Amino acid sequence: MANLLPQDLLHRLNWRYAVKGFDPARKISAACWDSLETALQLTPSSYGLQPWKFIVVESPALKEQLRAASFNQKQVTDCSHFVVFTHIPELLEADVDKFLDAFSAARSVPRENLNGYRNIILGDVHGHRKPFIREWTRHQCYIALGNFMTSAALIGVDTCPMEGLVPAKFDEILGLGPTRCRTVVACAAGYRSPDDASAAAAKVRYPKSDLFEHR
Amino acid sequence: MANLLPQDLLHRLNWRYAVKGFDPARKISAACWDSLETALQLTPSSYGLQPWKFIVVESPALKEQLRAASFNQKQVTDCSHFVVFTHIPELLEADVDKFLDAFSAARSVPRENLNGYRNIILGDVHGHRKPFIREWTRHQCYIALGNFMTSAALIGVDTCPMEGLVPAKFDEILGLGPTRCRTVVACAAGYRSPDDASAAAAKVRYPKSDLFEHR
Repeated sequence: MANLLPQDLLHRLNWRYAVKGFDPARKISAACWDSLETALQLTPSSYGLQPWKFIVVESPALKEQLRAASFNQKQVTDCSHFVVFTHIPELLEADVDKFLDAFSAARSVPRENLNGYRNIILGDVHGHRKPFIREWTRHQCYIALGNFMTSAALIGVDTCPMEGLVPAKFDEILGLGPTRCRTVVACAAGYRSPDDASAAAAKVRYPKSDLFEHR
Repeated sequence: MANLLPQDLLHRLNWRYAVKGFDPARKISAACWDSLETALQLTPSSYGLQPWKFIVVESPALKEQLRAASFNQKQVTDCSHFVVFTHIPELLEADVDKFLDAFSAARSVPRENLNGYRNIILGDVHGHRKPFIREWTRHQCYIALGNFMTSAALIGVDTCPMEGLVPAKFDEILGLGPTRCRTVVACAAGYRSPDDASAAAAKVRYPKSDLFEHR
């Protein structure tokens, strides 16, 4: 496809808002959801390490439990697909090797040619960044969240990002204890209810003169 | 504009890659750049607080200095517009009041009707989240980065996200000391050089079965 015109992009971004009331009867189709998973899969990450796992919840019973750990926000249960963005707080040598194996396979590069790159990545994530690695992988989840909300808006799917949740409770409910993943943030996806008054509310944004500086 | 078809979205996301070689002769037009600033302005943030400032660098001399603080990566100088995402590490009552003033004006709600909302926000950012507020506002910049890269790809503008930089040096070069803003991450924007071999390289992504879990 050719580029979108800038005004068409902005039209879609203006259409987006943080949905308060989802229509519980409307489900995202399997084909459409699969495209959104592909969009998430294509999210850029530092070095391409993809230090995340996306947990997609459709089970009404599980949504009820997560809602209780999200200050009872009804978006959790009323949305179609509820996505929990989890990060891998610790990056091991094995994670880097897994990535380099995938790199070697995707680009038909002999694995041994990647040893220099391996040293660079490990020198960074086990060197300078070591004390911050937990935060660093968490940041990557927010890139995914930003990409997800914009991608969804482009194809007409509504979202509501959710930071109002208790990550430790989410981890417990989702049984993440024995895994290497931990909850960072979540996003509800689906379709707005025609009754959601927030849809018509003007956006609150600072003027560009406040937000940008040109040098 | 109507929704994009999912396959068209994915076409644009597959077109995107982290550019290694920008064409230094190609500049983003003023109108196109203005649209990208609007896209950034429309980025969702927690409570809508917009705890950020985007510094847009076009000055060749300043880009040279920033390149030296970015491990000499040539994208900094070769790109058209270099964006530094800065956050406001501390949220004061004045920040919340500024937001509520904007809210009141945009939505024609009497300011005094927002006192309950004010208490909720302050109770959160000066309560539970107080110890993490610096990280929390940093996270918001990554939402903006994710939105920015996807938005740019949609309208045919290339980007390269950059975490390989020394934030303290950036702050110094940009003279952020006396301001409340601090560097988080950066992104080069412009147009790929026809010589950039990375453009044709296959993407390295884990299979969906590794990245998603369905419940």
